[in-house]
Amino acid sequence: MANSQSTKAPLRLGIAGLGTVGTGVIKIVQSKANLLAARTGRAVVVTAVSARSRAKDRGVDLSGYAWEDDPVALAQRDDVDVFVELMGGADGPAKAATEAALAMGKDVVTANKAMLAMHGNALAAQAEENGAVLRFEAAVAGGIPVVKALTEGLAGNTVTRIIGVMNGTCNYILTRMENEGLSYDEVFAAANALGYLEADPTLDVGGIDAGHKLALLAAIGFGTKVAFSDMVLEGIERITIDDIRQAADMGYKIKLLGVAQMTGRGLEQRMTPCLVPDTSPLGQLDGATNMVVLEGDEVGQIVLRGAGAGMGPTASAVMSDVLDIARDIRVTTFGMPVEMLETAKPAVAATPAPFYLRLSCIDKPGVLAKVTAALGDAGVSIERMRQYGQHDNPDVAPVLIVTDPASRNSLDVAMAAMESANVLSEPPVAIRIEAV
Amino acid sequence: MANSQSTKAPLRLGIAGLGTVGTGVIKIVQSKANLLAARTGRAVVVTAVSARSRAKDRGVDLSGYAWEDDPVALAQRDDVDVFVELMGGADGPAKAATEAALAMGKDVVTANKAMLAMHGNALAAQAEENGAVLRFEAAVAGGIPVVKALTEGLAGNTVTRIIGVMNGTCNYILTRMENEGLSYDEVFAAANALGYLEADPTLDVGGIDAGHKLALLAAIGFGTKVAFSDMVLEGIERITIDDIRQAADMGYKIKLLGVAQMTGRGLEQRMTPCLVPDTSPLGQLDGATNMVVLEGDEVGQIVLRGAGAGMGPTASAVMSDVLDIARDIRVTTFGMPVEMLETAKPAVAATPAPFYLRLSCIDKPGVLAKVTAALGDAGVSIERMRQYGQHDNPDVAPVLIVTDPASRNSLDVAMAAMESANVLSEPPVAIRIEAV
Repeated sequence: MANSQSTKAPLRLGIAGLGTVGTGVIKIVQSKANLLAARTGRAVVVTAVSARSRAKDRGVDLSGYAWEDDPVALAQRDDVDVFVELMGGADGPAKAATEAALAMGKDVVTANKAMLAMHGNALAAQAEENGAVLRFEAAVAGGIPVVKALTEGLAGNTVTRIIGVMNGTCNYILTRMENEGLSYDEVFAAANALGYLEADPTLDVGGIDAGHKLALLAAIGFGTKVAFSDMVLEGIERITIDDIRQAADMGYKIKLLGVAQMTGRGLEQRMTPCLVPDTSPLGQLDGATNMVVLEGDEVGQIVLRGAGAGMGPTASAVMSDVLDIARDIRVTTFGMPVEMLETAKPAVAATPAPFYLRLSCIDKPGVLAKVTAALGDAGVSIERMRQYGQHDNPDVAPVLIVTDPASRNSLDVAMAAMESANVLSEPPVAIRIEAV
Repeated sequence: MANSQSTKAPLRLGIAGLGTVGTGVIKIVQSKANLLAARTGRAVVVTAVSARSRAKDRGVDLSGYAWEDDPVALAQRDDVDVFVELMGGADGPAKAATEAALAMGKDVVTANKAMLAMHGNALAAQAEENGAVLRFEAAVAGGIPVVKALTEGLAGNTVTRIIGVMNGTCNYILTRMENEGLSYDEVFAAANALGYLEADPTLDVGGIDAGHKLALLAAIGFGTKVAFSDMVLEGIERITIDDIRQAADMGYKIKLLGVAQMTGRGLEQRMTPCLVPDTSPLGQLDGATNMVVLEGDEVGQIVLRGAGAGMGPTASAVMSDVLDIARDIRVTTFGMPVEMLETAKPAVAATPAPFYLRLSCIDKPGVLAKVTAALGDAGVSIERMRQYGQHDNPDVAPVLIVTDPASRNSLDVAMAAMESANVLSEPPVAIRIEAV
């Protein structure tokens, strides 16, 4: 076997996009040639590259590679076996070049979660029709080999739930708010100045980027077509330092948490702020690190933790896919052929859960009675309640409530009733408490 | 691709060993036939089984399967494509049947860490010579897909260190000692009564079982031949509740920790009790759960956590290998051909580290001076020291020391000097503090 492998032709990569990740991939290919050949039984080489600027010094030697201004031309070159798409963007050149590669039966490795969240079903089908593979380990949770763990490692399981903190920037913001007592706006500005945020920050703090990742994992886990448009999205922009402190007082941390699960009411996909117990692995996740929790009927709960971004971790994930192809590991994009993926009915409402409620009550007699009546009338019962002493504003009495498990709809009815009764000085905040 | 896959012949399993894991595998094959076929493009079926007792009721229907009393005969059957070895034992029938299967070019999936720790190099070579694969996801850390993560997911990395808590029974014992203030002997007896221990408990509490697992991961990670005999092994039998409490006071937990790393002095492989920070993922690991930390030069640190034993988790891992074979995923046993694995020089001594020292000093003048002189003479400096008040024994003054990073050899010299000076009422305890 070893001998037959070592006579294989080199695997030739064409890399489109020479930012941090593309440069990292080239560094690995150049510096670890012998190791990669030993592991896969064949040489792995770069033959051609493409990027916006040819002149830019990226700290790697590109002189041995052909240059293409047009990524589509790169994807179609005869000396490219695998098209490595690291440009980003859901449409435009990334999609055009990916389609061009697949049309010619070339394998594609991409880190492009937006493209796959929008066009993954069609691209995966195109790959299958042309006998190519389309792999995306680097698109989800950086260096954590979660796509492989879910698609292959847990293939003997009916997946029951996927949970994850998959946007390092959001977790960094929430952790810094907590550790330094800073406001959301202060930390957001600092993170932006450090270049941690996407050009459109809503992609990060609005949960969209993390939602793209969760939609891809959900497709694999539940054998369903990618359905990003069905995802419930809520960002971290309204989280205050008070919420973080009061959650901490009650033994919780606030995370931008992705949850996907198949229920009797349909496929539930949410990327929203949630409270998780501070003693849980997710609760203990600080800073820009990512964590994905995979639950299967056989395996129970598997927790994966690692760097969600950065040159080395993301390039490591790209190389995982490239080296799979070098080893003739050829798995369908979402773990089964696209034609077998079901079109999931989106769950009309999330599974009931306890909620944390922060209410800024107007400090006058009878207000608490109206608040509790609003909850009771909506069928929401109270697990515990705290009223804080008046601090900076003597006219407002902050009230914190943890409810028993309730539907979000019931809660919304109760909160609307409170607002109609004019007992709150500002809109209520409700954050789901997720059992993890 | 989907159509060509669906015309493939069924993959036929012969399962030897019908204990918890074998029964779990059969349950998965029977209950998830459609799901497995969708994922792999072919039917996965059991054709024949073998176990010690044919009469025993295992709660699964075996009537459709051929029965073989002799696992070698099972392995050689014409209607068996994959021999699934779940008998256990480093030698004897497990090895004979595995060799018989490989000799005929049949693929083998095994959960047998002892067999691979002892004979893995030879068996992997035999597999390669015969064009077969020999896979062992279930042998290491139960349901955690760590063999796959290391062999495939991190294939673009030079692995720098592998750390793990990989014996759930030991972690259960240490956690119960801590939580309930019980002695080692008390918890050991309770665990034994619950059937948590191997027939020979030394395999668990002596670190041998976990050492087998670490030796297999080290071979993959560092591209070296399996070298279990070079592993430094130390069990948890000498850990006292005092050690656990005092470690906790200083912000540490005690774990039976496996560490493998390639150093300038050779390959370091240790499975010994260590202190780890109580805020680290390893420090927060309670009960029978397993955790493996993989460190690579590109990916940084990846943490994997999950159930290390039990029917579902272990059967899930067996199925991961089986379904890989069904998908034509064929990777060499240790990630590269055996002939390319290097024979590692074992490190003559472990990397220096801080140590926790517990000394039962005789309570008389000048003793502390002699203790500190013994350390100083051996070149071991003290990072912090505590002398406890005399409690149950007025003649003994317990002294706790955390050293600066020191070699184990220097520490042994210092401890020998203390014992020669007759200043200790019982042998000193030294536990390494591992940076994790």
